[in-house]
Parts: sequence; structure tokens; C-alpha cells
Amino acid sequence: MSTIFYHSPASRSETVAAAIAEMDVGNRIETRIVTIPRQDGSGGRDPDNPHPEGKVPVLVHDGRMIWERPAILTFLSELFPEAPAVCPPGHPERGPFLSWLAYYGDVVEPVVICQAAGISHDWLYAAIRGPEEVFQRLAGTLEDGRPYLLECGFTTADLLMASPFLYFPDLVPDMPAVRDWVARVGARDQRNAAEVGASA
Amino acid sequence: MSTIFYHSPASRSETVAAAIAEMDVGNRIETRIVTIPRQDGSGGRDPDNPHPEGKVPVLVHDGRMIWERPAILTFLSELFPEAPAVCPPGHPERGPFLSWLAYYGDVVEPVVICQAAGISHDWLYAAIRGPEEVFQRLAGTLEDGRPYLLECGFTTADLLMASPFLYFPDLVPDMPAVRDWVARVGARDQRNAAEVGASA
Ligand SMILES: N[C@@H](CCC(=O)N[C@@H](CS)C(=O)NCC(=O)O)C(=O)O
Ligand SMILES: N[C@@H](CCC(=O)N[C@@H](CS)C(=O)NCC(=O)O)C(=O)O
Repeated sequence: MSTIFYHSPASRSETVAAAIAEMDVGNRIETRIVTIPRQDGSGGRDPDNPHPEGKVPVLVHDGRMIWERPAILTFLSELFPEAPAVCPPGHPERGPFLSWLAYYGDVVEPVVICQAAGISHDWLYAAIRGPEEVFQRLAGTLEDGRPYLLECGFTTADLLMASPFLYFPDLVPDMPAVRDWVARVGARDQRNAAEVGASA
Repeated sequence: MSTIFYHSPASRSETVAAAIAEMDVGNRIETRIVTIPRQDGSGGRDPDNPHPEGKVPVLVHDGRMIWERPAILTFLSELFPEAPAVCPPGHPERGPFLSWLAYYGDVVEPVVICQAAGISHDWLYAAIRGPEEVFQRLAGTLEDGRPYLLECGFTTADLLMASPFLYFPDLVPDMPAVRDWVARVGARDQRNAAEVGASA
């Protein structure tokens, strides 16, 4: 079995790097650092990256490519069902775990990008909804006092759902339950970064 | 074990209805028809629908809600791993199966909505890309002569990926491999509709 993770620091692939650290499977996966074009004009597409558009993250498992973070995090939860921080197939919260991963990609990310770019349109709202609904959804889940999105505790779905708010703290709404959750996930992320640094 | 599927005909939940038919598990799932607000002003939010925003499709399995089509189709592939038309956990093409489902939600649907709404923006292109890249991706996969997206044949990932092109045929690009694939998936869909109708 061979699993290769194509990673570019300070990009969306950090979510997968953090998931690998939380799942404690860094010794079962080969991480390869690749470049991507950066907004400041530095970097550039990396010929070693198998993604057809040169994006990260990408996983290649036994020769087959897996792309898009919800798919990669789902796949890792199946490859390492005993790992911490995942709800593998058959887990009572498997359905909600998969739903938060998909909801991130289907709704949260387009909503955040459109908000940042100042885009609004009736059809987008009808099809996807807006920041208000995303925050209500988060608050509705967290306000019953649970520290993370799932009853079973912290999972890699928290990492993905919190990722834009960790990068752009200005997006975090003035809702204590949501703010505290983002801070909680962020604190783990830094702890992991330190651990990975120490063991590297 | 109890699995309830909340469905509204002529909406995005048709993808899940078609998946249930292709997987031949209609007798293992209870389908409940609910209303949603329609563009012509008819319909309306249904109090029986457990989705917090009143959307369909929704699955409720053993009391837990699963929402977003990529999550629902992934979950069904785990609940019924022996069914046709899925790559369950452990299948050699599981990773690509999950990736097409996620890619649909993360990229294809926002691209199609923005195209239909006439929205374009540098940040959207940087983060998501556009119709050109989606069609290149499809053509690059289908042009080696395979009839469906995965080597193992037709799966519910084809249903999801083809869904906007079945609803809006004008979106189908003038690329024979892509056009033929949409037609092939569409033909199955109608066959299923007929079968479901006959057994209802
Ligand atoms: N929807 C994808 C997004 C991947 C993505 O766009 N990654 C960016 C890094 S933040 C990238 O690789 N950009 C390079 C490029 O667009 O050429 C995911 O969540 O995995
Ligand atoms: N991203 C969701 C979209 C679900 C969705 O927006 N469904 C529409 C029907 S096409 C709906 O229920 N609309 C009712 C409403 O927005 O109130 C999915 O793919 O499952």
C-alpha cells in the first residue's frame, strides 16, 4: 500500500496536513511538497503535481488520484478507521460527519468566496444561501454546549469547517459559540504544527 | 435500521431517487414526498422536512440527518456496499468515486450557477475555475473511450456529475465524448423512472 500526499504549505492543503497530524498517521503517508502559483506572483505550477490543474491537496493511493478536500478526508477516514478524529463507515455519526464535509465544499466555501468578492445574486442565494444561514447552522449545532460539531468530539470535519475562519479571522461572526469553536480548532492546529515540527 | 428519504419530484433530490433506483434498494428505504418553494411561487416549505432550511434531498438514518448529495450518495454506498452502481469502501476506485462526488459539489455546481447567472470574478476563477476546465476534465476522462467516469462502469457519481446537464441541455458542450456520456446517463435515468413508475 502506498499513499502520497501532495502538499503546499500555507494553502488549502494545510487542512489535510492537520488531519494527518490529528489522525496520527504521518508515518503511514509520504508527504511531497510541491509549489503552486501564489497571489504575489511567486511559486508556479509544479510538474511533479499530478492534479490536472496543478492544485493541492492531492492524494495518490495505490496509483489512483483523489482530489477535493471532502473526498480526501473521507478517504483517509476509511483508510485509517481506527485513527482518532474520524467517524469511519459504520460509526453512529458517520452520516453527519460526511454531511459537514460535503456542506463545507457545496455551501461554505462558495459563500465565503462570494462574500469576500462582494458578489451577490438571487440565484446564488436560492441555490446555495449566504453567510447568515451558514452561521445560524453552526450556532444551532454548537449552542447546545458541545465543543465540536459532532457529539463524539473533535473530528477532521471541524478542521475543514473552521478552515476559512482560521485564515480570515474577520469572517468570524460575533456569536460566542461560533467564535469559541473557531478558537478551539485553531488552538489544536497550532499544537499539531508544533508537534509535527518537533518530530520532523 | 430505519432510513427515510425526503424527496420532492423535479428537484435536486431526483439524483438521489435515481441512485436508489439504480442501486435497487427502494424496498430498503422509505421515501416521503415533501414540498419545497418553487420558482413559479407554488409549493412552500414543508414542516415535515427536517432540513433546517427546508431543502431536499435529506436522508434520516436511525434518527440522524444526512444532507448534501455528495454525502447522501457516499452514505448510501456504505449502507448498501453490495448494490450495483457504487464503489464502496475498499473498492479499488473508491478514491476517484468520492472525488467525483466532491468535485461536483465543490466545483461543478458553483461553476454552473455562476455561468447561468452571468457572474464572473477573478477570485471565483482562482478558487474554483470555470466551465472550460470542467469540460476539459470530463473530456479528458471520457475520451479514452470509457462509457462512464469510472473504469468499473456506471456509478451514482455519473448521476450526480451529469445532473445539471440533464436539466439544462444547453449547457452541454460541443464535445462528442461529453455529449454522448450525458445522453447515456440520461437514457438510464428515464429507464429508471419508468421502472419505478411501474412498480409503484
Ligand atoms: N476545492 C479544492 C480547492 C483546491 C485549491 O484550489 N487549492 C489551491 C491552494 S489554496 C491551489 O492549489 N491553487 C493553485 C492553482 O489554482 O493553480 C479543495 O478544497 O481541495
Ligand atoms: N447542495 C444541496 C442543494 C439542495 C437544494 O438546494 N435543493 C433545492 C431543490 S433543487 C431545495 O430544496 N430548495 C428549497 C429551498 O431552497 O427552500 C444538495 O446538492 O443536496
